[in-house]
Amino acid sequence: MTIMGDCIRDEHCVFCKILAGEIPAAKVYEDEETLAFLDIAPFNYGHTLVIPKRHCHGLSDMPGESRDRLFAAAALIAPVVLRVTGATGFNLLLNNGQAAGQEVPHAHLHIIPRFVDDKVLLNAPQKQYGDGEMAALQEKIQQRLAARQAAEN
Amino acid sequence: MTIMGDCIRDEHCVFCKILAGEIPAAKVYEDEETLAFLDIAPFNYGHTLVIPKRHCHGLSDMPGESRDRLFAAAALIAPVVLRVTGATGFNLLLNNGQAAGQEVPHAHLHIIPRFVDDKVLLNAPQKQYGDGEMAALQEKIQQRLAARQAAEN
Repeated sequence: MTIMGDCIRDEHCVFCKILAGEIPAAKVYEDEETLAFLDIAPFNYGHTLVIPKRHCHGLSDMPGESRDRLFAAAALIAPVVLRVTGATGFNLLLNNGQAAGQEVPHAHLHIIPRFVDDKVLLNAPQKQYGDGEMAALQEKIQQRLAARQAAEN
Repeated sequence: MTIMGDCIRDEHCVFCKILAGEIPAAKVYEDEETLAFLDIAPFNYGHTLVIPKRHCHGLSDMPGESRDRLFAAAALIAPVVLRVTGATGFNLLLNNGQAAGQEVPHAHLHIIPRFVDDKVLLNAPQKQYGDGEMAALQEKIQQRLAARQAAEN
């Protein structure tokens, strides 16, 4: 890891190389914390990736300021992508971890323009909770969240 | 639309009814701007919905403060859901508009716990840009974004 301007960089990271200008990208937006560029293998044309300039793996190690700017940038960019592509909806998708389909270990937010019936993101069948399972899970999550918040305060 | 505490409410909205306590939900987290509860029809157990308390349709009409708190809450909740469920990754997904699969017209962020090879979110084949198509799209998006930012300043 090295410092690149105000940013922490990972030399082996392809997105850090894009940020450093060492790999080309079709950039559409940039601010102090954020870069956005077109995905070269889009689910639909206009599929855009928004990344924090500071190298981080996912949502949980992303500094709060980077996170705020990342999603603010997405809110700015998405309607423009829809206008230009004629899409009528979009998915905002962050795949966190390999199990979730994250391919580049530098957090990135997908803006995926969508058209009715384009079948771009397909969901698996939904599951059902058995008797008491939902309440048990709810209690465990509540308890851990409360413990985490107490530890932070 | 009526005022409900500090929140704008839509009487016909199922999530506003959950916020008002008129429909039960397995709540796991709450702050001034945000509520999170378990999805009753989860892709995987622990699938959580995070919603802004102020009724808005999507990312673009969400007040900035609501947006910041929504994603901050997700960053807090997601690792806890992983810890409790044993999942090793998660998708953060906001479906914006019917074409993108949005079923309830009150913005909501999915935290979907993921396991290797669970096949929960499947992507369509990726497309390829033809010669010059990517650069043309890039230019259109850049121009509209610049115009929008100029209009705001």
